Amino acid sequence: MFQTFSESADPTKGAERAAALRVKLKELGLDGFIVPRSDEHQGEYVPKSAERLAWLTGFSGSAGTAAVLADKAAIFVDGRYTLQVRDQVDPAVFEPVSVLETSVGDWLKANAVGGQRIGYDPWLMTRAQVRRIAISLESIGAELVSVETNPLDNVWQDRPPAPITPVAIQPESLAGNPVAEKLSEVVKLVTDARADAAVLTDPASIAWLFNIRGQDVPRTPLPLSFAVVNATGRPELFIDGRKLSNAVRDTLESSADVREARDFPARLAELGQASRKVLYDANGSAEAVASLIEKAGGKLVEGSDPVALPKARKNPTELAGTRAAHIRDGVAVVRFLRFIEGSAAGSLTEIDAAKRLEEFRAQTAAEGDVPLADLSFDSISSTGPNGAINHYRVTERTNRALADGELYLIDSGAQYQDGTTDITRTLVIGAPSPERLDLYRDRFTRVLKGHIALANARFPKGTTGAQLDTLARQALWQAGLEFDHGTGHGVGSYLSVHEGPQRIAKTGHTPLEPGMIVSNEPGYYRAGDFGIRIENLIVVRELEPVPGGERPMHSFETITLAPIDRRLIQARLLSAVEIAWLDSYHTRVFGALSGWPTLTGEERAWLALACRPIAG
Amino acid sequence: MFQTFSESADPTKGAERAAALRVKLKELGLDGFIVPRSDEHQGEYVPKSAERLAWLTGFSGSAGTAAVLADKAAIFVDGRYTLQVRDQVDPAVFEPVSVLETSVGDWLKANAVGGQRIGYDPWLMTRAQVRRIAISLESIGAELVSVETNPLDNVWQDRPPAPITPVAIQPESLAGNPVAEKLSEVVKLVTDARADAAVLTDPASIAWLFNIRGQDVPRTPLPLSFAVVNATGRPELFIDGRKLSNAVRDTLESSADVREARDFPARLAELGQASRKVLYDANGSAEAVASLIEKAGGKLVEGSDPVALPKARKNPTELAGTRAAHIRDGVAVVRFLRFIEGSAAGSLTEIDAAKRLEEFRAQTAAEGDVPLADLSFDSISSTGPNGAINHYRVTERTNRALADGELYLIDSGAQYQDGTTDITRTLVIGAPSPERLDLYRDRFTRVLKGHIALANARFPKGTTGAQLDTLARQALWQAGLEFDHGTGHGVGSYLSVHEGPQRIAKTGHTPLEPGMIVSNEPGYYRAGDFGIRIENLIVVRELEPVPGGERPMHSFETITLAPIDRRLIQARLLSAVEIAWLDSYHTRVFGALSGWPTLTGEERAWLALACRPIAG
Repeated sequence: MFQTFSESADPTKGAERAAALRVKLKELGLDGFIVPRSDEHQGEYVPKSAERLAWLTGFSGSAGTAAVLADKAAIFVDGRYTLQVRDQVDPAVFEPVSVLETSVGDWLKANAVGGQRIGYDPWLMTRAQVRRIAISLESIGAELVSVETNPLDNVWQDRPPAPITPVAIQPESLAGNPVAEKLSEVVKLVTDARADAAVLTDPASIAWLFNIRGQDVPRTPLPLSFAVVNATGRPELFIDGRKLSNAVRDTLESSADVREARDFPARLAELGQASRKVLYDANGSAEAVASLIEKAGGKLVEGSDPVALPKARKNPTELAGTRAAHIRDGVAVVRFLRFIEGSAAGSLTEIDAAKRLEEFRAQTAAEGDVPLADLSFDSISSTGPNGAINHYRVTERTNRALADGELYLIDSGAQYQDGTTDITRTLVIGAPSPERLDLYRDRFTRVLKGHIALANARFPKGTTGAQLDTLARQALWQAGLEFDHGTGHGVGSYLSVHEGPQRIAKTGHTPLEPGMIVSNEPGYYRAGDFGIRIENLIVVRELEPVPGGERPMHSFETITLAPIDRRLIQARLLSAVEIAWLDSYHTRVFGALSGWPTLTGEERAWLALACRPIAG
Repeated sequence: MFQTFSESADPTKGAERAAALRVKLKELGLDGFIVPRSDEHQGEYVPKSAERLAWLTGFSGSAGTAAVLADKAAIFVDGRYTLQVRDQVDPAVFEPVSVLETSVGDWLKANAVGGQRIGYDPWLMTRAQVRRIAISLESIGAELVSVETNPLDNVWQDRPPAPITPVAIQPESLAGNPVAEKLSEVVKLVTDARADAAVLTDPASIAWLFNIRGQDVPRTPLPLSFAVVNATGRPELFIDGRKLSNAVRDTLESSADVREARDFPARLAELGQASRKVLYDANGSAEAVASLIEKAGGKLVEGSDPVALPKARKNPTELAGTRAAHIRDGVAVVRFLRFIEGSAAGSLTEIDAAKRLEEFRAQTAAEGDVPLADLSFDSISSTGPNGAINHYRVTERTNRALADGELYLIDSGAQYQDGTTDITRTLVIGAPSPERLDLYRDRFTRVLKGHIALANARFPKGTTGAQLDTLARQALWQAGLEFDHGTGHGVGSYLSVHEGPQRIAKTGHTPLEPGMIVSNEPGYYRAGDFGIRIENLIVVRELEPVPGGERPMHSFETITLAPIDRRLIQARLLSAVEIAWLDSYHTRVFGALSGWPTLTGEERAWLALACRPIAG
């Protein structure tokens, strides 16, 4: 089982650990210190050895920052974690602060004083983050100071070692393009940016570029590493040699110079000494990278990670892989949906359900040729009011039974070697009262209308996700309703389930290009009562010319395959076009999944019923 | 008649005038000079005394820039003017350049050489514009040099004097709020920006703030002037005293210090000498303003014109005025539409039609209490292929007859003392072939569907125009079609017909707030064949709570009142909701206009027929 449902956090250690850190800060002549959740790679998942924020404060969420001054400290979290932080952190030691209302910089401005020196580890923050906080501190005459060694690491006695899991080669039969081809595309982007080299610090970029995968962090198959892509000459991969078998090393060395990760800082200084112009992502890469290059005399070209866009545009082989992964994943989800429908209301808990879904995925994957490599994130298995909490993760403490008349929302995904999945379905449990059912149906159908509007969209080449986001909200807006998250995020190919730069959201300013995978997940949440979300992954594709059409257009192909709960659909709220989409989607789901060799007759019959036309 | 249809431009003078300018540049030690179309106020309309670009090159369009080097020169225009510039400018003297492909900076980078000094008049360019060109010149080792006196003005022998039209007070019965109230709102914004003062260079901002209007430029009732709003103390208005009657001066002096416009630069230096922090709009105000303050020791706070948002949110009095203006304007448009319908195909030209519409406006306004003060822009009276040219202005040379089977597109507006109008209608002339009519109807109905989707939108408080723009395009996108302009621009209240910051477009990142007026004008253009646009003005308003709704929502009220050509509607392409909107709109148009006292029985009968329900 990949998932656990325990809480590792312990609020009781905060006081002594903050005290130990403060002693160390005093030795170093620092008046405070900033502890972000990030590691050196600024990714969503970090290894245990980099769980500094959790060790110090007890807070185990995926995003947050602590600021420690001599006499007070605070922990900054966003809306997802305002409840969780109060359970996991001792508020007498770390004041919980909503980062949307008060940024770290704002808080330091109000709580630090002129002349103070506040430290930070330049490997754990991006240049953009550092700039913002530095401006706040400057405004009160205080100073943000970079440290060479992280003082927290000095006082963290039982810190686990950095992970050294084996690196695997992602075969060309799944990656689609050889490393040489990918490199030439990325080198061209580096040259176009008028840079001599680019520094890659995102392990997902490096994994894609060199066709490698690993297990250094949970949920995302990444080997932690750094790389330098040179405009002329071979690229350099900086990775702990113990992760490489001889065979893997040989393969890598055919296209790159393989060097030890600990040599990376020296190489950055070397680039600087050689007066190189280095492409640097101020929003994605550690400040340390920038300052090592600049201090040695190099020049930064601020831009985006040059791998991000090529990686986002999936090639035909990757798309074929992800389609295969979605059939396998869809069969597992169908088995799970049937299992939930067949279980008596109240007989299952959120944890039971999440475990069962993971079992179905492992079983179905084992039946195919491609085993379940991991989940793509911890399942959001949530019933009733828990469904209204975005990014809910069930624990023994929050666990609830799937009770009669409630809505059950399950958002989950898997990592298979041929693709990454992410799907949300919302189901009705037992028999709600007619009034409840009417309410559920109204809201569910409006969310579905938004989902279909996006799935059915046609749009000119060059259109961004920001331009499409409203389509998923219109039906809710008409009823005075709204949901407070983006409609879709990018998804990787046996890589991160959250991938940029493409997204369907107000902030999605990247044009959607053929091959990009994004989620389509509008929702509706009634705090303290229930939550609804319908999520499929969709792929941008070139639209066959429409008769009479004049512009190159794109559209989406929906690749997630699982029925949408018909009991929650209010058919009279749907237009003919919407019903046609739904019926055609269900026909496709049945066609794609019903041929799975080990599907039982009963499973097939259930699927047929779940996929029958709305009019039927 | 406010409009003229002649072309004032003369391409034959370019050679001698460029030569004269070059002699002057040489005297000044300059290797080149930049001549924008803007005046000191960066507005859309400039007085004759500031038509430097037209004098030098012959080009009379509303946007463009010339760059003159010793041996070559270029004129930069956008897509609207690529045809016009070739008619008006001698290409042997000024190479026409598409500014979207090659910016002024790009061109100078390619055509100037290291060590050269390129001059510009800092009163005619914003800081943002100067920055962009300076960076390009620096990259080749050349320099952008600010001049104290514009060398073009030295060689422009017959330059007209600056306008000194009388300033009128806009009474509180139309402006809604007294100057003191407006001032306190603006002063608060200056204080919130942590500035000691704000400099206003947009005459529309000054006109709104001090409740004044004038006639210094065509089409927009503005007195050209500058102002300084002080965080403490009285505001200062810099204006040529000859524009002020004693009564107007007295009124102004009750709330402001009135000073001569020529004293404005000295006052900026004074602010600098006093080390004031001055709010400055780098995208909207002249570079000279910024540099005069900075050179004298002041500090700039870069931000937006603090008047822009308060001005954009119309108060109830302004909205009542604009509704009255739209009834008057609607009656004139109805008379015009009936006139066109009653004229034999081929019997009218675009100029005839434009003149007739202006006459109807003048006549109808005279019947009411509020005379026609001006048009709000030169009417776009365009038939057949001319309709596909955005921003087309008919001249004797381009004039076409409204021929049988063609579409006629008329985009026009008026300035009344109580409001500014802007309306586009597209009509079918005579009897097109069934195939043509089918094509027209398909396209027209898709544009109408977009228009209705926006008019009917409900959206949460905080939503921007960028989020709504797509609604107006969906029906076209489904057919592989698109239009290449924004869906809507802000509109002033007896002020500029193009007003920011609100707009419905990809770039509209200002939240739409109650009282803001924007246009709703999707279109479709088939180059060389025909153009379609349907434009009404709409006002953002707070939506009455929807039963079961949870969020504060906004919606639009359509204020433009004139029938939409039923002959061009393909009813089966419309949904029930769309038909309901259209029928209800037409009912409202008839209700609002049919009571106009001087409407004849025949006119009323025509209107009733034009407004009958789609199903009828």
